[in-house]
Formats: sequence, C-alpha cells, structure tokens
Amino acid sequence: MTDLLLRNVRPMGGAATDVLVLQGRIAEGPAPAGIATEDGRGALLLPGFVEGHTHLDKTTLHQPDWLVNEVGPRIIDKIDTEREWRARTGHDAGAASLALARAFLAQGTTRIRSHVDVDTSGGTQHVERVLQTREAMKDVQDIQVVAFPQSGILARQGTDSLLDAALAMGADIVGGLDPCAIERDPVRHLDIVFRLAEKHAKPVDIHLHEPGSMGAFSLELILERTRALSMQGRVVVSHAFCLGDIPERERDTLLGQMAELGVAIATTASASRPVPLVAPCRAAGVTIFGGNDGIRDTWTPYGSPDMLERAMLIGLRNNFRRDDEVALAFDCVSRAGAAGCGFVDHGLAPGARAELVLVEARTLAEAVVARPARRVVVSGGRVVARNGALVA
Amino acid sequence: MTDLLLRNVRPMGGAATDVLVLQGRIAEGPAPAGIATEDGRGALLLPGFVEGHTHLDKTTLHQPDWLVNEVGPRIIDKIDTEREWRARTGHDAGAASLALARAFLAQGTTRIRSHVDVDTSGGTQHVERVLQTREAMKDVQDIQVVAFPQSGILARQGTDSLLDAALAMGADIVGGLDPCAIERDPVRHLDIVFRLAEKHAKPVDIHLHEPGSMGAFSLELILERTRALSMQGRVVVSHAFCLGDIPERERDTLLGQMAELGVAIATTASASRPVPLVAPCRAAGVTIFGGNDGIRDTWTPYGSPDMLERAMLIGLRNNFRRDDEVALAFDCVSRAGAAGCGFVDHGLAPGARAELVLVEARTLAEAVVARPARRVVVSGGRVVARNGALVA
Repeated sequence: MTDLLLRNVRPMGGAATDVLVLQGRIAEGPAPAGIATEDGRGALLLPGFVEGHTHLDKTTLHQPDWLVNEVGPRIIDKIDTEREWRARTGHDAGAASLALARAFLAQGTTRIRSHVDVDTSGGTQHVERVLQTREAMKDVQDIQVVAFPQSGILARQGTDSLLDAALAMGADIVGGLDPCAIERDPVRHLDIVFRLAEKHAKPVDIHLHEPGSMGAFSLELILERTRALSMQGRVVVSHAFCLGDIPERERDTLLGQMAELGVAIATTASASRPVPLVAPCRAAGVTIFGGNDGIRDTWTPYGSPDMLERAMLIGLRNNFRRDDEVALAFDCVSRAGAAGCGFVDHGLAPGARAELVLVEARTLAEAVVARPARRVVVSGGRVVARNGALVA
Repeated sequence: MTDLLLRNVRPMGGAATDVLVLQGRIAEGPAPAGIATEDGRGALLLPGFVEGHTHLDKTTLHQPDWLVNEVGPRIIDKIDTEREWRARTGHDAGAASLALARAFLAQGTTRIRSHVDVDTSGGTQHVERVLQTREAMKDVQDIQVVAFPQSGILARQGTDSLLDAALAMGADIVGGLDPCAIERDPVRHLDIVFRLAEKHAKPVDIHLHEPGSMGAFSLELILERTRALSMQGRVVVSHAFCLGDIPERERDTLLGQMAELGVAIATTASASRPVPLVAPCRAAGVTIFGGNDGIRDTWTPYGSPDMLERAMLIGLRNNFRRDDEVALAFDCVSRAGAAGCGFVDHGLAPGARAELVLVEARTLAEAVVARPARRVVVSGGRVVARNGALVA
C-alpha cells in the first residue's frame, strides 16, 4: 500500500487541505476511489526531516548501561578514547546505527548523512555494518554513508587503502578531517581525499574543526581542489568553525568563493564556540544546513534524534526570534539539508517522495520551539510511525 | 495528607533507598504505620527544581492564538513592542502567571524567581496579579516576585513611586535594568534601586545586558553600593553578559569582588552571545544559577517550563560533556539556584521541604540530556503531578 490520502492538514502551517500520495509520491488531481485515508485533524504538515551530519555508528543510545563520560578536553583525547573504547568493548556499529536510524524515523527524519569511522583498528567493519542498516531502511529512509577517517589518514598507515575499500563496497562520500590541526600535512591529506573522490566519482565532506586563520587556510586549500577537479556542488565542509571567528571581511571573501563553487556547510550550531552563522551564509548564497553530530556517544552525552530540537538549537544559536527567522532554522533541517547533501525529490511539491510529518502546532515557529510529538510519520507512501513510535 | 513514604528511589542517581516525608519535610527514622506509600520503582530522585530568572507575567503559553513575532533587533525595540502590546491586548498577568507557574510545577519546579513589570503604563497591576498567583500556589510552590522596571525608571516619571508601591504591597525584591545602556544615568538609576532596597529591607536583582567595559563599569557601581549598604548575600546580577566578553584578568578581578560580597549571577546561558561561564564563576566562589528568562512572550518564542531542559542548555553552552561537568549544569537549576535566590530548606537532606521529582533515568547526566517525563512530583508532602500533568 503506497497510496494514501491525507485529509485536513496544513502544509507548513498554511491553509488546511488534502494531500494525495500515489505510488509513494505526492500527486495532484482527484483521489482514486477506495484509497486509504488518514484524517490529519488540522495538524501542521512538514516534509520529512533531514539530518545532515551525524555518526550513526557511534551511538550508545540502544545500550542498557549509561556510558560515563570522563574524556579529556582536546579533540585528540576524544579520538583516542573512542577508538580504544570501540576496540575494548566490541561496540557493534550495526546494532547502534539501526537503533538510531529507527529512532530518527520515529521522529520524522527520512534522510540522513552519517559519517562512519574507517581506521586501522576497526578497518572497514563499521562501514560494512552501517551499509547493512542503509539497506534495511531503504524503503523508508535514505542514508548516505561517508567513509570517515576519524583517526586521520597520514599517521596511521593503510588508512587510505581502507577508505578506498569502503568506497568500493558502497560508501557514498569521501570524508576528511582537520588537515592542519590533526593531520599536520594539509596538502598531503587533502590530495588523498580528493584523489579518492576523483577515482570513485563521489562527493567529499570534510570535518573542519580548525579555528581562525588555520581553518581558513585549510578551507582555501579545499576550495582550490574543488575548483581544480570541477567538483562544484559536490563538496561539504562540516563545522567550519573558522568562519565564526575570522574577520567578517575575510569570512565574506571565503563565503563568496564557496557560493561560486557550490560548497555547502553542515553545522551543529554549537553553543560553546564560534560557528558559521546562518544569515551571512545565506546572504552570500551558501547553503548551510544542520545536524546533531554524535548522539550519546563517547564524544558527547547530548544530541537527540529529533531534528525539530536541532532546528531549535540552530535558532537559539543564531538569535532567531522572529517567526520568519525561526523558519530559516527549520530550513536548515529541511530544504537546505536536502540541497546540501544532494538528497533528491524532497519537499511537499507534487512529484516529491511522500515523506510527511504531522504535528500539533499552530505555526511552523511553534513546531520548532515546542517540538510537539510526531502524531504521524509517512514514508514510502505509508504510515511508518504514530505518536513517536514506529508501527509494525 | 502531608506524610508519605517513597519506596525504592535513587537520590541523585545513587543507591536505591526509601525516603520518608513527615509533615511535608524529609524525615529520618522508621515510617509510621499506615503511612501513604508511593513505589518509586527504582527511579532517579531529584529535589524540586529552581527557576532563578523568569517572567511569569509575560508568557502567552496559555493563549489560544500563536503570537507572531516581528520585533526589531534592539532591546529597546522589544521593550517598546511589549509595553504597547500589553496595553493594546489587555494581556492578563494573572492568568498568564498562574498557567506558567502550574506548568512549571507539573515539570517539577517548586521554586521560582519571577521578575514582574512595573511601569507607568501598567502601573503595579501586573505585580498585584502575580502576587495572587504566588498566594494561590503557596502550599506547593514558592514564588519570589521582583518589582522590575522593564521600561526604565528615569525616562518615565513616577516609576520609582510605583516600584515603592509594589514593594509595599508584597513584592519580594527590587529590580533594576541596564543603568548605562537603557537608563543613561547609572548613578541615579542605581541609587534609586538601592534606596528602595534599603527602605523596604529587601534584596536586589538587576538585569545587566550591557556588554564589555560598559557592563563591567555598571557592575562595579553595583558592587560599590552592595558594600556601602552591607547588602552582602542579597544582590543578584542577572545575565551579566559583560563577564563573557572582558579580558579574563578583569573578569577574575570582578568575580573576586562578587565572591567577597556574595553577589550571585543568574544566567540563561544564551547560545547567541558572550555569557559568564560556570567554571570560572565557581572557581572564584561566585554562585551562578540558571533561568529561562521569558517563555513564549513578545521577546522570544523559546523557553520551556522544564528546568532539565535549561540545565541541558547550560551544559551545551559551557561545553560540559563529562558526567561530573553535566552535574554542574544541573546544580545551576538546583542547589545553586536555591542559594542564589535565598530559597531555604531546599534539597534532599532531612529537614528540607519535601519537594521531590522522580524520573526514569540511569544517572543524573542522563536526566539532564534526555529530560525524561516527570513520573511523579511531590510538593507540600503530597503527590502534585504525575507524568507531566498536575493531579487534582
């Protein structure tokens, strides 16, 4: 059953209407006789949410014991702690990613970009397991897998071959990580990343935590390679913290180049450090979209599979108070997320895949700030969740 | 019925035990025969939460229509918009404050400090109405009312007399507002505030949004007056944004003086601007505690009567990831909030008022990051809410 008539719903908070789904897509015209119907009772209708940057493979959300976090303050502390913890506990990326993907679906998220660790300790096993999750969810959720060298490529010999293997087995995107601060050799690191992208004809998504002028330098090297390889529209820079703490003039120069090259930004809208703000990115024509980053893992106890909560945090970080501003925060987990990640057929227009979320809210802004229960989630043309729980 | 035996609960996430309540207070020794019992089923037990800075009188949480926010970016835009909106709509501070106070109680908050507007447009009517709410809730919730000159004292003649009247009718605390940036005459403004405090023998709580060196200057003037009037332990500075953006050396000098004078800080942990951070305040011996500020009002669509959510936002803003750090974020809506506001008999020790919250969480950190439903809230020695809803 992939046909459905949703009655009495308010798309994006607008006037009440009916929405027709035929063969899993939003359709126009009269509903066929005998079609399954769902009474929306005037609920707000939103397109399925987009999680643009998370780590499905790392979560402990599904584990019976609480993971006590005692990690040190530096990024390298977190990298080393995690790799050792994964090896010691035999943490299962398959069970983790499936549990988290399902939790996301129950809260209305139908598109996910997940970075997945590839390193000389775990090899490609985490990618293999998340690819199984991707396959298991494919009828109702679209998962992109980034082959992500969390422990670096240069310091741990053989990582480049493992990335190559992960891409060959089906990972969708080539990841990268702090070319200066972690890798200590930005040109060599980025050349490996972009060479893999070229070889496999796959996009790139690079974690760039580096602050200030160091981060800006790495970003320039990324933009040079995007241009040289004609990878316009196929590169994402995740975090890009540097864009939050360089002078505005320099920032706007970089944003101008990013707009020209179609390089997008994934942000968590971290509350505790400088971040790229939504308004100047949009003003420059740069796509900026949202993600949780890790959820309940060795890095952080925070995060939630609720993208309305992420939209709220983006709104708070950007001081978005007006209704028209809060709508921009929502856009980061919706249209902009799909555009930045290259998810196709997203949205509420006829022809789009029918991924629909019903919530009790008077306006879009209320949906973001109140994060009401997901009354109904539709994906693949059928109801997949009610009141926050998946249906059989 | 103000006696109760709570069985099988884990105070602050520790070992399971029973908690005895006699005459509304936590007691020791054997339970009397025939006492009412509540099975905690191993839930985490927390003391009632403390909301240290909100505006009960302003919320639209109880209103049928969504308030579309179109306000300008400056503080003065928000002040003027709100005063005009209140006058135009006849917004009822009584209904608003009662609805929000009850929503707080349902989520486990038993102590609230609310700033309440006093101005030449509304006079003292908002204070009068919130005092009625204070009276209505007094058996189960302790509400402090700050007589708050939201529109300033100096520019609107007669506001000082209105503040005087509000304090005479029962407001607990004298409020103040940006002595330089809004009032334009810091000495005159603060002299009025502190003279009212002296006359009524009541504490002071001043909104200080001023940034950088201007805010630091105002803060120095506040500290001088605290010392001169021997008001040690009776002054709170709300927001104190300046402490987030002056050089650390100057900040620490000010924090040292605040610690000596017992001047506390109320923070929302705003994600969008510099704020005083928890760690340096605590290191200096300054009490810092948390609050929402406004909730769904003309200033902001955000905010929630859930103080575990505020603790989470404080944790995110302070980059608190370790379990021992997340506990500090919780402390801001618990012990530190009670200490900073002067709420007595708070906590889980014998003799404290039995204000108890049960949640399903394995650890304190999980309670903060997951914000589980409040299974049971006890206040005044009886169960007042179950599963997030007040009982009759």
